[in-house]
Amino acid sequence: MTPEATLARFREYMVGPARFMNVLSCFELGIIDTLRENPGMTAIQLGAAVDAKPDAVEQLLHLPVKEGLLAYDETSRGYSLDALADVAEADLERVLTFLDLVKVLMLRQLFYLTDSVRTGEVVGLKELYGFDGNLFSAVAEHRDLRESWATGMDLGTARVDPWFFDHVDIPPGSRVLDLAGNTGLGAINTYQLKKSPGLKVTTFDLPEKEKECLENFRAHGVAEHCSFIGGDVFEEVPHGFDIVLIKHFLTLFDQDAATKILSNVNKALDVGGQVNVLVPVYQDNVRDFDSRSVDFYPAFFLGCAMGQGGPQKLSTYRGWLEECGFEMTKVTVENPAGIPPDALPLQAILCATKTA
Amino acid sequence: MTPEATLARFREYMVGPARFMNVLSCFELGIIDTLRENPGMTAIQLGAAVDAKPDAVEQLLHLPVKEGLLAYDETSRGYSLDALADVAEADLERVLTFLDLVKVLMLRQLFYLTDSVRTGEVVGLKELYGFDGNLFSAVAEHRDLRESWATGMDLGTARVDPWFFDHVDIPPGSRVLDLAGNTGLGAINTYQLKKSPGLKVTTFDLPEKEKECLENFRAHGVAEHCSFIGGDVFEEVPHGFDIVLIKHFLTLFDQDAATKILSNVNKALDVGGQVNVLVPVYQDNVRDFDSRSVDFYPAFFLGCAMGQGGPQKLSTYRGWLEECGFEMTKVTVENPAGIPPDALPLQAILCATKTA
Repeated sequence: MTPEATLARFREYMVGPARFMNVLSCFELGIIDTLRENPGMTAIQLGAAVDAKPDAVEQLLHLPVKEGLLAYDETSRGYSLDALADVAEADLERVLTFLDLVKVLMLRQLFYLTDSVRTGEVVGLKELYGFDGNLFSAVAEHRDLRESWATGMDLGTARVDPWFFDHVDIPPGSRVLDLAGNTGLGAINTYQLKKSPGLKVTTFDLPEKEKECLENFRAHGVAEHCSFIGGDVFEEVPHGFDIVLIKHFLTLFDQDAATKILSNVNKALDVGGQVNVLVPVYQDNVRDFDSRSVDFYPAFFLGCAMGQGGPQKLSTYRGWLEECGFEMTKVTVENPAGIPPDALPLQAILCATKTA
Repeated sequence: MTPEATLARFREYMVGPARFMNVLSCFELGIIDTLRENPGMTAIQLGAAVDAKPDAVEQLLHLPVKEGLLAYDETSRGYSLDALADVAEADLERVLTFLDLVKVLMLRQLFYLTDSVRTGEVVGLKELYGFDGNLFSAVAEHRDLRESWATGMDLGTARVDPWFFDHVDIPPGSRVLDLAGNTGLGAINTYQLKKSPGLKVTTFDLPEKEKECLENFRAHGVAEHCSFIGGDVFEEVPHGFDIVLIKHFLTLFDQDAATKILSNVNKALDVGGQVNVLVPVYQDNVRDFDSRSVDFYPAFFLGCAMGQGGPQKLSTYRGWLEECGFEMTKVTVENPAGIPPDALPLQAILCATKTA
């Protein structure tokens, strides 16, 4: 890269936050919906429709016009949808959910990224919410965080879980443990998506999740096949299972904690027992296509969610598994061409067998 | 743009804030300086050097490696400068000043952009600082805002002011009024950069600026040639001047306020009197190259600085000037190739003559 290209690249970083919020604000104000219903409206008409000053509306619309999302007609001074007109409603809804997640969970919190890295705490949650702890405890207390997080996660899970169960082998009669399975959704999905006869699935999580988890099992009609065990993955993982699932969890931790978890899983299994790990991954050479996760996850986990953690390269995950007595037998990585162009993570499934 | 391209573009917006802060954090932590001194350090060594956990350092460095700013050697696990090695120190300092400005003045404030547009106030300053008012009053009370702002402005002025005076005609003996001239820097620059014999330059601003302004004149040895008049541009502009300079000011206001200022300037001048306006501009067709200002200024002025204002298209400025009794006689726009690739605004000088 020439120095000129590097400096131009820095300009892209500089305008990242402004671009993000300018585009989102056009949706939040209702300008895009209004134009969808009434193409050709001027800034004055739009200002009246969305209760904002026309001068401000005009300012905000320069960027989406420049980007080709909207069109502007100089003669009539009217705006209309351009590229936005061709985006399917479900796609746009998914995008807006994620833009909101970035706004609520990240935009202000990122200001404290450097402090979060220095302290290993999510300083933004403390500064902005007076909250000591990570995002996953904060969502229990703060509705704005919870709503943004839950909506985003539901969309992500809806895409990833069916793909996960398509690629994980769970033979009939298996006894499956869903590690850090929260309130049972993973166990329910395991039972319902795998449809293997005689499956027994157990959610393992902190004891306070038990009540809601068992209620969920009953509500989904799987109470006969699913159960709950309370405990702490950093202490001991329950024995007596053939297959352990670790979904959306290992990425929350740095190496020492992540390998502690894997070691405890290893201790709980017999030789030949299986672990199936669902994690976002980075390419081993991050300059390879497609390394989109790198743009997002380090800042998210360190500055907004945990103060630690983040996805790893496949070679790193393999090393951790081997260090903890597993052999990685199969790796399945999402095909970038198979996920929506706006989706950030490339997920991987690491299947491994206990060797020692 | 195909729907796929549009969705991919949304992904770029989503990662804008994370990318911005991830890159800046590498500088804030001292990682880049450390690598400049000691190329080849590993994440473990860097963690020890900058007092951060190696796991977190490794996470943060994925992005600059992907982007080509840094290089990573898989064998030694060492990092070194890549494209960053070729950027001149002064260029990098300017970039870092601006990244800091975006962080301190914008990143958190932008969260409230939609509210700011709805209310015409800078809601972020109220929410984050408990401050009622615009950025330019807030900098007087809040040191973090002031320092970030002043450093950024000094760099911008150092580039733009010499260019401005190169392109503005101020004949010997002119009586010049620097409108909203703050504490005199513009007047001092006018006198010193134009070197026209017999020049008299007057700073016009709110009365409370007088003391510091006169001190500045004395300190720069221009007290004989420069003076101060206190007043309010929205009330009346002082008479008896041949040339009025309006630098870095008109952009702060929406149309009604901006044209009020221009009308008051018109009333103060004789027919044939000159006004020279320095403003950032947008291309008339914002899809034309180079519309870089559009990425930044609407969000900055509406959400972070004023709750109103922003640059306009050249045709809009021309219309406002004509509406206020001026004829635009000359327009000079910065050449994108002549400003640093990281610089955001394209400035313009609008020279106009009072016709009525």
